[in-house]
Amino acid sequence: MSNRAESVLVGLIGEGVMPSLTPPMHEREADVQGLRLLYRPIDLLDLALPATAVGDLLTAAGRMGFNGLNITHPCKQLVLQHLDEVSDDADRLGAVNTVLIRDGRFIGHNTDFSGFGSALTDGLPAAKLDRVVQLGAGGAGSAVAYALLKAGVKHLDLVDMDANRAAERATELSGLFPVANVTAHTPADLKNIMPLADGLVHCTPIGMAAHPGLPLDIELLEPRHWVADIVYRPIETQLVREARAKGCDVLDGGRMAVGQAADAFKLFTGKDADRDRMREHFLELIATEESALVKAAH
Amino acid sequence: MSNRAESVLVGLIGEGVMPSLTPPMHEREADVQGLRLLYRPIDLLDLALPATAVGDLLTAAGRMGFNGLNITHPCKQLVLQHLDEVSDDADRLGAVNTVLIRDGRFIGHNTDFSGFGSALTDGLPAAKLDRVVQLGAGGAGSAVAYALLKAGVKHLDLVDMDANRAAERATELSGLFPVANVTAHTPADLKNIMPLADGLVHCTPIGMAAHPGLPLDIELLEPRHWVADIVYRPIETQLVREARAKGCDVLDGGRMAVGQAADAFKLFTGKDADRDRMREHFLELIATEESALVKAAH
Repeated sequence: MSNRAESVLVGLIGEGVMPSLTPPMHEREADVQGLRLLYRPIDLLDLALPATAVGDLLTAAGRMGFNGLNITHPCKQLVLQHLDEVSDDADRLGAVNTVLIRDGRFIGHNTDFSGFGSALTDGLPAAKLDRVVQLGAGGAGSAVAYALLKAGVKHLDLVDMDANRAAERATELSGLFPVANVTAHTPADLKNIMPLADGLVHCTPIGMAAHPGLPLDIELLEPRHWVADIVYRPIETQLVREARAKGCDVLDGGRMAVGQAADAFKLFTGKDADRDRMREHFLELIATEESALVKAAH
Repeated sequence: MSNRAESVLVGLIGEGVMPSLTPPMHEREADVQGLRLLYRPIDLLDLALPATAVGDLLTAAGRMGFNGLNITHPCKQLVLQHLDEVSDDADRLGAVNTVLIRDGRFIGHNTDFSGFGSALTDGLPAAKLDRVVQLGAGGAGSAVAYALLKAGVKHLDLVDMDANRAAERATELSGLFPVANVTAHTPADLKNIMPLADGLVHCTPIGMAAHPGLPLDIELLEPRHWVADIVYRPIETQLVREARAKGCDVLDGGRMAVGQAADAFKLFTGKDADRDRMREHFLELIATEESALVKAAH
């Protein structure tokens, strides 16, 4: 008699998640589809809990009737040991950003990589994928690299300030995609590899409001390059703006943010999200946020 | 940016709460009012947790972004030690059925008594309240007796098979309402006290589907008596049916169930519930349930 089956309760566990746009994106899409869905941010910083509390929070979520959770920094790896089952891709990637709770069991998925994959297909359908340069080999970078290799990139140049991190990640990815060629680089190599690349994917924090600037010498970009940024605050990063000015095909970071949310929505609710509608809402939310920031600065 | 402020997440902690009608009552009323409200039953039996786990569940609810909880058997007293604040009435009554979670603080209320009080006002507005016989001095009976005395009953005859329980409850209530006269009885006294009473309130399990029958000799009822039952499964108990046949003014158990829910809804959301609409929905839910039971029996 309860409406449990007809309603969906989900949350987002991580540090600093209170301002996340994922909760309103899910709730709005559910509203339009006539689903009763409630999405709660569960912020480790607010709760003064360490990242290792993710297991206890999973238990709590199960007891309180949650249907699923998104998991973000710094819990995407830590959560693995608390799961009953993990999708093949999340297992290979070693990171989970979505947990379904079904009959008391916890099942891990990763929609970061699939979200980037669909963003690429939707936003840059004509992009040539033979050789791609990726800047940044951190957590988000891993998911993006995995998506690029799944999408058929033959040669991935992985560039990181931290040469060891780039090398480790390249080794891991070569193991997962033995047919592809994944090579590690530091930014000094960019002048040599950009002329060989079809496109550039940017996965470092540079360009975010707190880290303004360009992640590479803009002279290295040619109009024939496509450019994908995963930074979305602001949505128009300096890289996106200058690449577009050069005539490059450009994918802004909002596409991946919407892609991961749409894929998680499908897992949580069993229903397809309308990605265009979700992106429109996402852009509205970003615009509201940006205008609030501008006001606060004056 | 999250919709936290615009949405309400509540739950019900207790044993055997999965079939409770309170979750759908709240959710439907919220739907009509355009509020995003999700109400989860949290069943100690399903979770294989003892009643003493209520404190841990409160903590979990706070962490997971719940705005409030209803609390039912067997946790209404146990929950008290985990609260930061308790309303005067709940404190005097020694029982909490509603907890608000505000800025990490847990605040206890009791809408069982207030729900019965408003049920009485709404459903039997003309009831004379000078002297009332109450059958059953258990947990639900305590809240009802408290409501009756708050409503101005001058003489309350508290009847219970357990003479000690009746006596203890009468002593407690006399302490809380020194102006009223509260006397303890066993069912053997009914033939002497019913002729003196204006009305009868029934607070034992007799008449529920699992305990069919009448809680007193129906010959003791006169047409001038009003009769209130708190059993609502079925909504037409034998007592309600036979009292109505005698010409008594009758209040069925649904009114209290709706009253406690409406008062909790107001606490959770800050909005008035439409009690008539909620009652209509409640009767629909009960009818659906009863017809399912009839089908299952054939």
